Amino acid sequence: MLLIDAGNTRSKFAWWDADTDKIEILGAIPHQSWLNDLSQPLKDLLLEVVSSRQLEREQQAIGCSVAAVQVMDTLNSSLAELGIKVFWQKTRAQQAGVTNGYTKEPERLGSDRWMALLGCHEQVKQNALIVDAGTALTIDWLMADGRHLGGWIVPGRQLMLNALGQGTANLKGITVNDIERDGLAAGLDTFDGITQGAEAALTGAIAQAIQLSGRYFSDQPFDVVVTGGDGEHLMRTLSVEFCRYDDLLFKGLRLCADNLNS
Amino acid sequence: MLLIDAGNTRSKFAWWDADTDKIEILGAIPHQSWLNDLSQPLKDLLLEVVSSRQLEREQQAIGCSVAAVQVMDTLNSSLAELGIKVFWQKTRAQQAGVTNGYTKEPERLGSDRWMALLGCHEQVKQNALIVDAGTALTIDWLMADGRHLGGWIVPGRQLMLNALGQGTANLKGITVNDIERDGLAAGLDTFDGITQGAEAALTGAIAQAIQLSGRYFSDQPFDVVVTGGDGEHLMRTLSVEFCRYDDLLFKGLRLCADNLNS
Repeated sequence: MLLIDAGNTRSKFAWWDADTDKIEILGAIPHQSWLNDLSQPLKDLLLEVVSSRQLEREQQAIGCSVAAVQVMDTLNSSLAELGIKVFWQKTRAQQAGVTNGYTKEPERLGSDRWMALLGCHEQVKQNALIVDAGTALTIDWLMADGRHLGGWIVPGRQLMLNALGQGTANLKGITVNDIERDGLAAGLDTFDGITQGAEAALTGAIAQAIQLSGRYFSDQPFDVVVTGGDGEHLMRTLSVEFCRYDDLLFKGLRLCADNLNS
Repeated sequence: MLLIDAGNTRSKFAWWDADTDKIEILGAIPHQSWLNDLSQPLKDLLLEVVSSRQLEREQQAIGCSVAAVQVMDTLNSSLAELGIKVFWQKTRAQQAGVTNGYTKEPERLGSDRWMALLGCHEQVKQNALIVDAGTALTIDWLMADGRHLGGWIVPGRQLMLNALGQGTANLKGITVNDIERDGLAAGLDTFDGITQGAEAALTGAIAQAIQLSGRYFSDQPFDVVVTGGDGEHLMRTLSVEFCRYDDLLFKGLRLCADNLNS
């Protein structure tokens, strides 16, 4: 079955083989590449990620989305063209043993964070601090018994660099792929001042969360569970022990797939 | 003499009385209030901040600016209308005992940061970690002997909240003045998740800088010198000892005033 993670800036795809119960990460498509360049319809981009052989075998897909409505409209119509019906999963108050910490308005918790919580609860039989470093850096506390204790949302690296460009007259146009170095040091020019500043803010937020975890997990052991494209880089700078799960969200979607046909 | 700090989002004014050598903070004018509302010319706003009695006594002003060119044009023409000639100060490689850490391109260091370095060197006879929490959060390392070791630039609180609004579909429109609480806690709704996330990133960056200061100051004592509107709030969350200087930048401008007539 096709698993879809429609994120803020790109959509990621994976294939769950129900026979082997294995999840294979297929690839990601940046939203800008199809929203700006209509010469290459999304349907063709999808066929570069998902093989037609897989699509013939299974016409159902399951996904979650925090993407903008324009992205969703195009994604749904392109998948329908390929004969695929998508079951979009919503955040709930309780599911698969996890209790949502947003007690007043559970549906307001991002569905990407919800799926990662479900996936983590199934994979990590331990208190977990989930660090998802993508377009935004999200941090969530999840107890071993499935209680979600809430979390944080911080602008990711590129959003931070953009924010300085917009808010000031002289600090424009730095992009993430210009950054190579791990570790923290004082910046001796504007480029390093800004890129190291973003690194300090992102790693600083994670360090604050790790410190707070003692209180939240009553000084019991916990795992730092890292996912998202920028996660590994940040943890190397922090030199903190962590376990990496690239498919945490997809593991959550796979759990939801069980209920599709039940 | 009128002292002017033309910042990213507002201009701040102070009066230096050369006889008493005292600096009186006069007030600030947000740039949007004159750029958007031409019905109230900047000249009138200035006269609400600076008394005509002061303007008659002294027709020279000294300032530094990181503001956009539209702001500077309006500011200069309005001050000229009031008969005031402004000596805008630029960042240098060396001045008043301070050596700029941007060795390759010293002029690229923000003049607001340069003035704060000059003011700090004169006021604080100690190694200093300067934390200026304004539109951007800037952090600078300054040795007791006047050597500047470089620094960081991080989006300030409102820029971080805006960044999430721009980079994601569902996290829009949170403003700084909605925030009351000190201290850090997991967010149990989207508002708290974002505002606490910004708090964690800003305090986390400062905490990372404090940690790095041991290395930069070779484990010698140092002061955490805090300035900028958001500084006190952040330091209360960090519960770290610090000394507050509201007029650090103006103290730097006052040092430059000595050379105006020499």
